[in-house]
This record gives sequence, C-alpha cells and structure tokens, in this order.
Amino acid sequence: MNILGFCGSLRKESFNRKLLRSAEKCLPEGVRLEYFDCCDVPLYNGDLDGERKPEPVARLLESIRNCDALLFATPEYNYSIPGVLKNAIDWASRPAYASVLVHKPAGIISGSIGLVGGARMQSHLKQVLSSTMTRVYPSPEFLVPQVQDKLDAQGKLVDADTAGRLKKYISGFVIWAGRVSVL
Amino acid sequence: MNILGFCGSLRKESFNRKLLRSAEKCLPEGVRLEYFDCCDVPLYNGDLDGERKPEPVARLLESIRNCDALLFATPEYNYSIPGVLKNAIDWASRPAYASVLVHKPAGIISGSIGLVGGARMQSHLKQVLSSTMTRVYPSPEFLVPQVQDKLDAQGKLVDADTAGRLKKYISGFVIWAGRVSVL
Amino acid sequence: MNILGFCGSLRKESFNRKLLRSAEKCLPEGVRLEYFDCCDVPLYNGDLDGERKPEPVARLLESIRNCDALLFATPEYNYSIPGVLKNAIDWASRPAYASVLVHKPAGIISGSIGLVGGARMQSHLKQVLSSTMTRVYPSPEFLVPQVQDKLDAQGKLVDADTAGRLKKYISGFVIWAGRVSVL
Amino acid sequence: MNILGFCGSLRKESFNRKLLRSAEKCLPEGVRLEYFDCCDVPLYNGDLDGERKPEPVARLLESIRNCDALLFATPEYNYSIPGVLKNAIDWASRPAYASVLVHKPAGIISGSIGLVGGARMQSHLKQVLSSTMTRVYPSPEFLVPQVQDKLDAQGKLVDADTAGRLKKYISGFVIWAGRVSVL
Repeated sequence: MNILGFCGSLRKESFNRKLLRSAEKCLPEGVRLEYFDCCDVPLYNGDLDGERKPEPVARLLESIRNCDALLFATPEYNYSIPGVLKNAIDWASRPAYASVLVHKPAGIISGSIGLVGGARMQSHLKQVLSSTMTRVYPSPEFLVPQVQDKLDAQGKLVDADTAGRLKKYISGFVIWAGRVSVL
Repeated sequence: MNILGFCGSLRKESFNRKLLRSAEKCLPEGVRLEYFDCCDVPLYNGDLDGERKPEPVARLLESIRNCDALLFATPEYNYSIPGVLKNAIDWASRPAYASVLVHKPAGIISGSIGLVGGARMQSHLKQVLSSTMTRVYPSPEFLVPQVQDKLDAQGKLVDADTAGRLKKYISGFVIWAGRVSVL
Repeated sequence: MNILGFCGSLRKESFNRKLLRSAEKCLPEGVRLEYFDCCDVPLYNGDLDGERKPEPVARLLESIRNCDALLFATPEYNYSIPGVLKNAIDWASRPAYASVLVHKPAGIISGSIGLVGGARMQSHLKQVLSSTMTRVYPSPEFLVPQVQDKLDAQGKLVDADTAGRLKKYISGFVIWAGRVSVL
Repeated sequence: MNILGFCGSLRKESFNRKLLRSAEKCLPEGVRLEYFDCCDVPLYNGDLDGERKPEPVARLLESIRNCDALLFATPEYNYSIPGVLKNAIDWASRPAYASVLVHKPAGIISGSIGLVGGARMQSHLKQVLSSTMTRVYPSPEFLVPQVQDKLDAQGKLVDADTAGRLKKYISGFVIWAGRVSVL
C-alpha cells in the first residue's frame, strides 16, 4: 500500500509536516508514505485546466492516481482549510466525472497552536471531500491541540498520549483503507 | 466610499467577475468599486510572511487597508471557497491581532452553473470571515443559480429577477456598510 | 434489507415525507422501508438518559438497531437540520462508545420550497453523522429545489427529471448499503 | 439592558448553565440576565405554527421580543447544536419576514468535557443565526475545554484564566450589543 501525504502548511518547520513524519513511523511493514509538496502548484485557473495541465498539476494528478490512500496533515487557517491545500484539491477535483479523488480512501490529522486542534478545519475538509466523493476514514477526529508542546526540537513526537493516539489512528486507517478500496 | 471587489475565479470569462461588474453598475453616486486580482498572490507560506511581504501581498494588504468595504463574488468549488480566494484571505488575516480584515464590512454574492448558487461556499466563507472578525452584511444570501443563463454574451446581467435582487442587495449593503463602519 | 426512514418535518403534508414515500416506490424487491415518526421523542435530557429510556426513545434505539440502513428525508430549517431530527439523533448517539448509529449506512434526500434544495442542511447533517461514525452514501447530493412544483396533489412525484434522479440515487444507495454493511 | 439566556442542555447540573450563571455575575450594573428554559417547548410542527401558538412557544417569542440581546451557553452534541436549542430557534425563526430573531444581538459561550470546547457547535450556530439575521458578537470564540475542571462543586467558575476570559467576553459583548442595537 502506498499512501500519499499532503501538508497544508508550506513552512519549513511546519508542525503538521512533523506529524506526518511521525505518522509515517507508525506504518506497518509493506505500507509506504510518500509526501507531495504543494509549493509548486499554481493558483487554480479554469483557463489553464485543459487537456494539457501545468507540469506540477500533472504530477499532482499522477501521484494521486497512483496512490492507494491519502493522508492529510494540516493546520487550521481562519477556521478552515489552508488555501494552499484547497487549491491543490481544486485542481485534483477536475473533471468532476473522472476526478482522481473519487472513492480514494483518505485520513485527516491536524495539530494547532491553540486548543481546538484543527476541528473546524476538519469539518470543512470533510465537506470538501464529500463533494469529491473521496472516502474519509470514519473515526473520532485525530486532533493535536497545542502541538508545539508535543514535539521536541528535532520534530519528534514526544508526548506519550498523542503518540499512542496517533498509532491507533494510523493502524485503524491502514486496515480500513485496505478494506474500503475493494468496494 | 470605496469598495474592494474580489473574485474567486481567475477565468477570463468568469461568471462571478461579470456579476461583480453588474454589481458595480448598481452603486449609488459617490461609491466606487475597485477590483483586486488575486492571480499574482503567491501560495501562503509562513516563512515568507515577515515584516517584508512579497510585493503582491503588500499590494493586497494596502488595498484592503484603504478600502471602506469588501465585496466577494465567487463560485463554489467542491462545496467550499476556491483555494485562490482562501489563499488571499490567509495572507490578509495575518497577523491576527492587527489584520486588515478586522471589522471591515463585507458583502458576498455568488453564481453557479448548477442550482445551489454557491450556498455551501457562502457558509464556509462566512465562517472564515467570523474568524477574521470581518463584518458580513446580514441579509438573505444573494445566490444566482444557473448563472450562465442570466448573462448575455457581453457579460451583461439580462435576467430581470436577478438584476432586481442584485440592485436590492447592493443598495442595502452600501447603506449598511456606511453605518457599521462607524461602530 | 430493511431501511428505516426519518423525516425532519412533522407536518402532515410534509413534502419531504412525500419524497420518502416516492423513494419507497423505487426500492428493488426484497428491500423494505419502514418509517419512524419522531413526534413522540421527548427533548433530549441527559438526566433521563439512563439505563432505562423514555419509551419512544427505547423504540427509536430498537428500530435503528434492527434496520440495515437509514434514509433521511428532511427540509432545511434556518440553513441547518430541523431541531426535531437533530434531537432524535442526539438520543440515538448515546452512549458514544456503543451507539446504534455507528457504522450504519445512511442516505440523505431533501427538498425545499426555495432553490437551494436543502444543500446547507445536508452539510450539517453529514458533519453530525461523521461524529456518530454513521456511513453516508458517497454520491452527488440528492436535492429537490422547489419541491412543491414536483409533486401532485396526491403527493406523487410527477416531475420526470426528479423521479429519474431519485430512482438512480436510491438504486445506487441500496447497492452501496449492501456492500458497506459487510465491512 | 435585558439579556435573555439560553442553555442547550436540559441537565440539572449542566456545565453550560453554570457558565451562564457565571456570565451573569460579570454583568455591569443596570444589565440583567433572565434565563429561558427550553424544557417545555414542543417539537416544531408547522401544523401547530399558526396565529395561535402553543403556550410555551408564545412565551418564548414574547421573551425574545422583549429582550435587548441573547446569550447562548450550550454544549456541542455530535459536532453541532443540541436539537433542544435548534428546536427553540426553529420556532422563533417563524415567520421569516417578521421573526423576533432578526437583528437581535447575540453572544455565544460554550464548554465541553473534551478539548474542543464547542468550536464545531459554534460554527453551526453562527450559520443558523446568519439565516435568521441575528447579529452575532464579532469576537474570538469563547470556548471552555474540559469545563468540568474549571467549576467547583457549587458550580462556581474557579479557573482564573477562564474567569478572566469570560469577564472580557461579557464586557465586550454588552458594549457591542448596546451599540449595534441602534443600527
């Protein structure tokens, strides 16, 4: 199984990218996580969305098409999804009748500086993914409030409770993604 | 009064930009609408968001700071806000304690090819603007279902019902924006 | 397969209950729809939610436990779910670790007097059902704008386009519900 | 100024009702808070919503009409508004063209057992109140995660940080409600 990871923050020291790296370490043998960097994806423009796509978009579509599941790790910006991530989803969602996102299994993890842990972002992201008919792992939301206190200077997840919850989320997600992909 | 208009679509023939132009024609004397084009705004990256901003971002912040009200005209992408528009808002929202969006009066209009007219996008946009403490015009939502049938080849709003509703929305919005800005 | 139908409106002549009846007529042989009437369910009160439930709540829980899938047909009240329906879900969701709603397949149909067809309600309902880990049929939303014009005086769905879309939604839903219930 | 308080939980020992009592103690002189108990409000039924309302509904409408501002204190049930509270709002929102909720200033406070503090509920409630054109206090959301640890056995708010934030929220809300009501 190949999982494609997305991070909604482009910051070099993004807490959510670090969460994604921690998630990678929880994967069982035989499951790989590859990371897609949204930094080169241009702003969505219907006039550029023809047969021939801008190169980073072609790569985005190809990467999603070839993966078995998606894993989003993203902060909450202004009670919603970062524009960076939404923009990538906007490209990937076209054309609607043949989008690479349709029926793809997806998981969501999020950390925030504050206490809410990205809960409002997850609501919006789930609604967006219901539009693209992407299948979101049915589970209590995996939220990391005050994520800055749960990681050490090297970006390692050192909070035992969070690490345990992440392990559980990822294990369940991988099993579910394997099952749901046969439907 | 100076209103700053934003369009969530970058398409040259965007229906929502045409709606914005139609809205401009409804403005009473003394009220001007200027259009901000998001096409040059880079993807949000916290590492680039220092004292010195990328030039298109500096222009974005300056334009919002100097206007009296905002008017968003935007399609719905995947049941939510286009990433392009969300990305511009993400830049404009920082730093949170001194964002140019705080207390700025804002209106929202939206058209869609389908029947929903952007209703799901408006919900998300209003939540985002509640985060930035931008003040959204309290009014029944202005939605244009099947917008492609309401505009002529020159982009003129030719549907009488829609034109009447737009005139009413814009008149009410301008009066409200004038009042609320003194609070 | 036994489907349990819920209507968010208690009106005798509810358009959405009529939609539910039309949906019933689309069911393939061997699939039955039973209707649960929320009118006797008391307001949720944690103090009454003990081992022993109020009788209409006990019936609600039993009906959900025994069905194979849920079908919600409901209007949009104030951009969201009718309180009547949300109240029934609140009862059915407890206790969270053993709720009868967990993993139950569910479909959503909605009609409205206006043009939006219940789209904003569907967003809220899907978020609620993500909380209860109920599995919602991944499909374009089934919305009926101006539902009053699509039904005749006897409550029969006479609009051919809507009838065709409903048939398609229900067929797909039944097949999906059969598959997903084995996961 | 008379504020009408609503609690979304009917539990006798509701944490959110206790928060409302704490909010009451923050009110400046001359401002009173009265509490409306939703426990007698029947389930909304359009057939009962005529000229003559059920008695508890008549009282609800009268209480809202006579108050200067609303204050909601409510838990989050299933990522949304408790059905109990939504049901009361459904009654109060009719008829739409003359609802007692239109332009009424409103504040929202929420506490939860978990960490999210009601953030997802606040999103839904704000969307509902945008539908009724009720004016919600523009402010960072007042959320109390793990509310059970912030109150003593008598229901007194003993956590200094939360008490300080509540005082600030309520002070700001009262000043804003006074101003906005003249618009």
